[in-house]
Amino acid sequence: MTFQLEVEILPKAGMLDPQGDAVERSLKALGFAQVHTVRVGRLISLALEADTEDEARALGAEMAEALLANPVMETFRLEVSG
Amino acid sequence: MTFQLEVEILPKAGMLDPQGDAVERSLKALGFAQVHTVRVGRLISLALEADTEDEARALGAEMAEALLANPVMETFRLEVSG
Repeated sequence: MTFQLEVEILPKAGMLDPQGDAVERSLKALGFAQVHTVRVGRLISLALEADTEDEARALGAEMAEALLANPVMETFRLEVSG
Repeated sequence: MTFQLEVEILPKAGMLDPQGDAVERSLKALGFAQVHTVRVGRLISLALEADTEDEARALGAEMAEALLANPVMETFRLEVSG
């Protein structure tokens, strides 16, 4: 069965995020004054063959820890859909 | 009221995504043979002052179109939480 997996990766709270700061400044310069706490991360979308949703989620966590995210500086969240 | 907004940006279907191809090759080299159709995009997380969730969503779409996403090459999706 094919599952669609999204791995959402963001810098950990407390880590410097110069890219997020730059986006925040640019948004404010464009007039979006009501914005704050901008963080920029990565989104990895992939299709995955697995027998169950639990198996797909476990494989996703393994892939995120092995390659996709940097556990020292980043946190990740998985979204699995059937 | 403060809303939490996530802007999920991915290359449009049909656009070349060399970063996604590289991640797919690396996952397969690590033994994750059950993976395909890997796409790499950006995730932008921000806090936003707005009166209603609809207003937050409309502001998010405006920001995504003005600055965060490239509408020629990318699609975006918004997630708003209270």
